[in-house]
Amino acid sequence: MINVYDRRFENQQDLKKTLKTDGLDLDGFLRLVHKEFSVPSDQRFVLVTTDRTVVNDGKYKELQDGSTLYLLQNKDQVLPVATEENINFVPHYNTLIESGTFEYFAEGQKSLPCALAELVDNALSATAKNTGGRTIEIQLLFDKTFGKPAVVVLDNGCGMTSKQLNNWAVYRLSKFMRENSTFESERDAYVRPEPVPRSLNSDISYFGVGGKQAAFHIGDSVRMITKPINSPDVHELVLSKEEFQKKEQNKEDVFKGTILNRKPGDYSHVTSSERFLQEVIKEETGKDSFTAVVITGVCPEHIKYLKQDFSEWTRQLAHIYHYYIHGANGNHKTDNALRSNVIPQIDILVTLRDKPSYSMNLRKVEDDMQTLYINSAVDTFEFKVKTSEGGTVDGVLRYHPFLYDKETYPKDMNVLQAPVEEDDDENESGTMNQTRGKRDIFECFWNGRLIPYTTVSE
Amino acid sequence: MINVYDRRFENQQDLKKTLKTDGLDLDGFLRLVHKEFSVPSDQRFVLVTTDRTVVNDGKYKELQDGSTLYLLQNKDQVLPVATEENINFVPHYNTLIESGTFEYFAEGQKSLPCALAELVDNALSATAKNTGGRTIEIQLLFDKTFGKPAVVVLDNGCGMTSKQLNNWAVYRLSKFMRENSTFESERDAYVRPEPVPRSLNSDISYFGVGGKQAAFHIGDSVRMITKPINSPDVHELVLSKEEFQKKEQNKEDVFKGTILNRKPGDYSHVTSSERFLQEVIKEETGKDSFTAVVITGVCPEHIKYLKQDFSEWTRQLAHIYHYYIHGANGNHKTDNALRSNVIPQIDILVTLRDKPSYSMNLRKVEDDMQTLYINSAVDTFEFKVKTSEGGTVDGVLRYHPFLYDKETYPKDMNVLQAPVEEDDDENESGTMNQTRGKRDIFECFWNGRLIPYTTVSE
Repeated sequence: MINVYDRRFENQQDLKKTLKTDGLDLDGFLRLVHKEFSVPSDQRFVLVTTDRTVVNDGKYKELQDGSTLYLLQNKDQVLPVATEENINFVPHYNTLIESGTFEYFAEGQKSLPCALAELVDNALSATAKNTGGRTIEIQLLFDKTFGKPAVVVLDNGCGMTSKQLNNWAVYRLSKFMRENSTFESERDAYVRPEPVPRSLNSDISYFGVGGKQAAFHIGDSVRMITKPINSPDVHELVLSKEEFQKKEQNKEDVFKGTILNRKPGDYSHVTSSERFLQEVIKEETGKDSFTAVVITGVCPEHIKYLKQDFSEWTRQLAHIYHYYIHGANGNHKTDNALRSNVIPQIDILVTLRDKPSYSMNLRKVEDDMQTLYINSAVDTFEFKVKTSEGGTVDGVLRYHPFLYDKETYPKDMNVLQAPVEEDDDENESGTMNQTRGKRDIFECFWNGRLIPYTTVSE
Repeated sequence: MINVYDRRFENQQDLKKTLKTDGLDLDGFLRLVHKEFSVPSDQRFVLVTTDRTVVNDGKYKELQDGSTLYLLQNKDQVLPVATEENINFVPHYNTLIESGTFEYFAEGQKSLPCALAELVDNALSATAKNTGGRTIEIQLLFDKTFGKPAVVVLDNGCGMTSKQLNNWAVYRLSKFMRENSTFESERDAYVRPEPVPRSLNSDISYFGVGGKQAAFHIGDSVRMITKPINSPDVHELVLSKEEFQKKEQNKEDVFKGTILNRKPGDYSHVTSSERFLQEVIKEETGKDSFTAVVITGVCPEHIKYLKQDFSEWTRQLAHIYHYYIHGANGNHKTDNALRSNVIPQIDILVTLRDKPSYSMNLRKVEDDMQTLYINSAVDTFEFKVKTSEGGTVDGVLRYHPFLYDKETYPKDMNVLQAPVEEDDDENESGTMNQTRGKRDIFECFWNGRLIPYTTVSE
């Protein structure tokens, strides 16, 4: 169907016709236009696109359903009356797969731990209402016998219904909007998590960007596998760069997809190049609910970094999630009286399945910066601040004196920074750089993020 | 059309039927299912959604075209065979209208000059190939006789064809992709601008994000009006939050819209609440090509800031575009020999139409920081660095000595910072904060952005 506007004459009524091109070549179509608009046989006319290109054979073949053409006396004739051209401006699929590119690189910090932290944040959010323990596993499945390398972030949280999984895939559909939908079925059971002392409230994906952004920063395909509480079904959704490209080439709808609904443990759809998925799926049986984020297409440099710098980035995660793992008092190694009374039931496990394999509970990390700060400070000052927006900031100011000709402020083994985060009134945080010298140092930690704050003693 | 999967029995062949609901109430639909799947009259069955909600009257009314249902023996029965559910995950319209929210606020700097700078950058890009003068006008149409307040950024650059305007509206469709399209009609005449000494190459919107982001940071509606070279037509496209919301409520396709194609000067479509548009459109006649970005729905605080702090933000823009306006040597006030030989033909004009009206050419600003730096430095060192990626960074290191018990480094009248920008290998730049004391200061400027660099003299 082509929309043709007759704009040959000034005082003509608005004349638009929608013509079928089915089976017509250019000559046939021109004859049809001739007839439909009753062009006298001795009158010249020209058919142009809205870009004022004369429709020749090549151009005619490029016309798409809904294209707009003008019938004019000559190519450069002024339009006596305006025309309306229908357009489509669905965002490009790069909206999804490149959403993290600038955010992560702009920060100039190690981007992979930040992307993993974003997925851990989502998992913390999903497990916030767990009645039993909360377990978050980061599995690096790099052993070649598994098929292609994969990064899996698995939690035993509330899972997602297929509708929630669909909403997850919609860029910028925030949890807040889902919550307020007029349609019951679109309203998520979303509840903002309660604030946790010394911790962000893990609501980073509040804006409908975080998870996809982080996954596509790590690899170029993400398979979400999830089972919501009280449902016998597991839901699976794959978003992949390759699929998007294929659909674009075939001129298909890029944002149409399918969710696979199946019983737990059913891996009949898994191909041999993704044998690791069998392992992941076999472990589903017996679980009440879970979400697994399975990322493939991980580039070799990422794999190299995750393997070679395993202790660096796990230490970094142990630092970021210190108070989630150790409780509000943190990891006091020497003074048992100061240890948190109640150890939170949050386990963050990291497994590297390769040759050899490693496995580690972040609670066992003893050299993360937060542990070092806590154990080297000679004095601490706790504070709680109400913000004007009604949020609460709470934190600790710690004193690391300059003693016996040495700074007691612990040395940072790597350049260590807080993860990128989208700002939220209640989640203000920041970092400040500091240079080393002969100083007393006050270091300040608030709501889950570190800012070293330096004062020169005089 | 509803997709119903029969999943009652284990060893049953994959049975799926697409049923019409037209005119049927729930009872009618259940009878249809009964018949279609030949359920024996003595057998119980249940129809559930993929979220395992039993389809009752309320749920039945919520079903949409293409919804998926299961036919089961009971609500919690395990799926013997997997099912595929069609979903749609077109990004939410917030992708467009909120794209700038976090970027601009995260930087903790005056966000409006940055958003305006982004639009000026686009205008610089559009005028890069001009053979005559390049004129960029920022018009603030706040006089109430004009209708609602509007911010207009107008350039005399190459303009856009209706196809290019359509592509402009597609989020994350980068210029690079358009350039490489296999379809001639989709390929833009896009050429990366040549590098300009001391200046960014104005390619900030290279990623298909900048312009929409900036416009929706300033207001909640943007009307693009553009006339490409060699075309008798003006093209207009409106993107507005209100329109998006309306379409969403009416369950219409949010990313479908219309481009208005008309002759220059034709304002017959303009409503009285947008009388200012008449003024803008009247001036089109006789112009070879142009682009006007017309932003409305500007919030009162923005209007207040733009009016009250007129001299602040214009000085800031004069600083940012210093070398575009004054040429590679900058604005040497005292030493005529050092003045740039060739003043670039780039005019950036700012007009505030209110009571009273102001008008200003940024070239006339004499107190922007860059002018102050240039005129207070006692020595300068020019440098050019090739980056490993093949780009060039060029800049000036200037010496501001501590003299006669005073720093000669010019005082910053406002907190002045470089605009937010998406990083591009060739466009590296940054700012560093510095505190004031008794020091010699080296200040360094590279490729169009300032970093004050401080050295304590000992």
